[in-house]
Amino acid sequence: MTDTSVADAARRARSAANTLATATRADKDRALLAMADALVDGTPEVLAGNEADVAAARAAGTAAALVDRLSLNPDRIAGMADGLRQTAALADPVGEVVRGSTLPGGLELRQIRVPFGVVGIIYEARPNVTADAAGLCLKSGNAVLLRGSSSAAQSNAAIVAILRSAVSSAGLPADAVQLLDASSRDSVKELMRARGLVDVLIPRGGASLIKSVVEDSTVPVIETGVGNCHVYVDAAADLDMALSILLNAKTSRPSVCNAAESVLVHESVAEAFLAKALPALRDAGVTVHGSPEVVAAGGACGVPVAAATEADYAAEYLSLDLSAAVVPSLSAAVEHIRRYGTGHSEAIVTGSLAAARSFVSTVDAAAVLVNASTRFVDGGEFGFGAEIGISTQKLHARGPMGLPELTSTKYVVTGDGHVR
Amino acid sequence: MTDTSVADAARRARSAANTLATATRADKDRALLAMADALVDGTPEVLAGNEADVAAARAAGTAAALVDRLSLNPDRIAGMADGLRQTAALADPVGEVVRGSTLPGGLELRQIRVPFGVVGIIYEARPNVTADAAGLCLKSGNAVLLRGSSSAAQSNAAIVAILRSAVSSAGLPADAVQLLDASSRDSVKELMRARGLVDVLIPRGGASLIKSVVEDSTVPVIETGVGNCHVYVDAAADLDMALSILLNAKTSRPSVCNAAESVLVHESVAEAFLAKALPALRDAGVTVHGSPEVVAAGGACGVPVAAATEADYAAEYLSLDLSAAVVPSLSAAVEHIRRYGTGHSEAIVTGSLAAARSFVSTVDAAAVLVNASTRFVDGGEFGFGAEIGISTQKLHARGPMGLPELTSTKYVVTGDGHVR
Repeated sequence: MTDTSVADAARRARSAANTLATATRADKDRALLAMADALVDGTPEVLAGNEADVAAARAAGTAAALVDRLSLNPDRIAGMADGLRQTAALADPVGEVVRGSTLPGGLELRQIRVPFGVVGIIYEARPNVTADAAGLCLKSGNAVLLRGSSSAAQSNAAIVAILRSAVSSAGLPADAVQLLDASSRDSVKELMRARGLVDVLIPRGGASLIKSVVEDSTVPVIETGVGNCHVYVDAAADLDMALSILLNAKTSRPSVCNAAESVLVHESVAEAFLAKALPALRDAGVTVHGSPEVVAAGGACGVPVAAATEADYAAEYLSLDLSAAVVPSLSAAVEHIRRYGTGHSEAIVTGSLAAARSFVSTVDAAAVLVNASTRFVDGGEFGFGAEIGISTQKLHARGPMGLPELTSTKYVVTGDGHVR
Repeated sequence: MTDTSVADAARRARSAANTLATATRADKDRALLAMADALVDGTPEVLAGNEADVAAARAAGTAAALVDRLSLNPDRIAGMADGLRQTAALADPVGEVVRGSTLPGGLELRQIRVPFGVVGIIYEARPNVTADAAGLCLKSGNAVLLRGSSSAAQSNAAIVAILRSAVSSAGLPADAVQLLDASSRDSVKELMRARGLVDVLIPRGGASLIKSVVEDSTVPVIETGVGNCHVYVDAAADLDMALSILLNAKTSRPSVCNAAESVLVHESVAEAFLAKALPALRDAGVTVHGSPEVVAAGGACGVPVAAATEADYAAEYLSLDLSAAVVPSLSAAVEHIRRYGTGHSEAIVTGSLAAARSFVSTVDAAAVLVNASTRFVDGGEFGFGAEIGISTQKLHARGPMGLPELTSTKYVVTGDGHVR
């Protein structure tokens, strides 16, 4: 991208979107496969751009974990290409008839899925999001304005140049995929004020990025997720199952939003469960921040437990830390979740059907799990084939978002001269 | 309502919403029927409040049409009660399974409809919206914060007092229905900044109200509709059908958003169509603002046509005015609609299947009609039974919004100890 304004880019995107809206699935899949092949063929160019970004990040003293997320290699590029091929294999959401009927006077009514039009995505370091988001938007018939981070600017520029050329070679408009200038905050501000030019904005990244977009954007936003996820061990839980689910939810990938950050234990099973769980959590490298009962249980089994503060109960640690509390009832667990949860994913472990029904109906979250790890809340696990993010808002989409969530709908009404 | 802050009202609404979320359809219908009966019984109180509002409006020199919209009588109150009874008769959207499957590992996945929680509605003069919105929100399991106009403050206060008492007598929390202070702009501002306390805001009213809410709210908004709706008379149109549809769309109720504001005529039928249409429109009291070709056609048949300006093509007249242009092709008609349309309802009149397919797929609007009047775009006509407004945004809901559009969803995942 050149230094033209966001509005100009959005206008070019609108023109491309008008073409994409009527592109067939065959057209779009051909472009996706061309994008995948071109990315693999263009590996040297992408790596050259990425090396410049990585060198700059190292020179700036960036933390090793962030440098790792930024770094590409031939395998990671091949993974991006595979993602595009998988997106090509998914059903086209556009044109799906969501509902339909014949009205009493004979009018035929159909509600069909249509693309949004122009989608803006604001995201942080990882360059693989560039290819993923471009592929999902193209498949759903949307033109995309990508605003990545300045730390990945050279990588993203190389990837987008390759993708645009491939889209064009497949007969679709190159402006279906555009990269915005990441060197200043102005492009983010312009995107957020581009109401009418951009149909929806999706911020992906840390809590502060998401908060600022949500608060300042006049373009409709889909908020993606902060996850302070709980596992509630009910009075009627199988305690071995509860421990297995807790360990999986906490430790299988602590840095992701569907990892558990807190465990709540019914008082009637607290002693027995904590006597098993605290040593197992310690052995898995987990630091527990507990209520007084949990601290006492730690003392009883020789596992040190830190005293939990309000901040602990509210924390999305994204690390091997876990808050823990003993609750007198299921409804007290639900109250705790209402107070501290972020509406992402909440699990109960129980053998009681009544407890499961009560938890499912009273916990207000994108996903509620019964006897399963919170880690399953993921577009891939849900069978969506791809995921543009996990929405924690209630409007439009809630939970993992696949291709259908990147569409709007249109009513089509057909008659033969009907008047009211 | 007292002068407590919006935040306090929203917290009470949240508590009520938690109860409503698990209320059965029977509970909710009982409350709706009690609300209907109580409104009829409370007719004297409502009329007393309304008389005060009407007197104040007259004293302030309010236009007669607005005073009429504000005025209630026993028939109008009975109509509000009937609306509540009709809402009771509709299916409960809460609990509907939107999709579901068994995942490869045996997890059962269901996506179910749940209430938003707390809905804010900002609306202008008509007091009947108070009862309609309260009924639709209650049926969909939402607590509602109603912010009506100060000109209807006494009417709304009387209606809400009656509704709250009826809700309470039916065993549901009175705070499911709350009226906010309409005497200052502060309650609107507070509502718009109540992110986290209010789940969605729906502004209903004039374009400037909607624009200010959309631009300033941090709470997610569903934008309701400005309608600059077009009727396109294609080269392959039955011209008698086209005239019948145009007259219906323009004149059956000019003040509503689904009324036509513009007619586009393919040049190959322009002379024949305009020679019929211009006299018929004149006889129906319509003033036409036309392109030079239309002005010339008016001259040829002795009907005066004003020269259309850019402002005419962009206008939502809501009156017996109509802009008119001759276009060289269907795609030129689509371009005109892209430029001036508001994405509400757009109609084509044609006998050509190819033309109909092209128009339907390339016009981007909440509703596209083939050989039918734009006036059919309405929740009642679509069989939704009730309507909270017509959305012209693409996020969440587009077109007429019924009960399902007042809900979000929740994923429920059930396993027997599943871990990833």
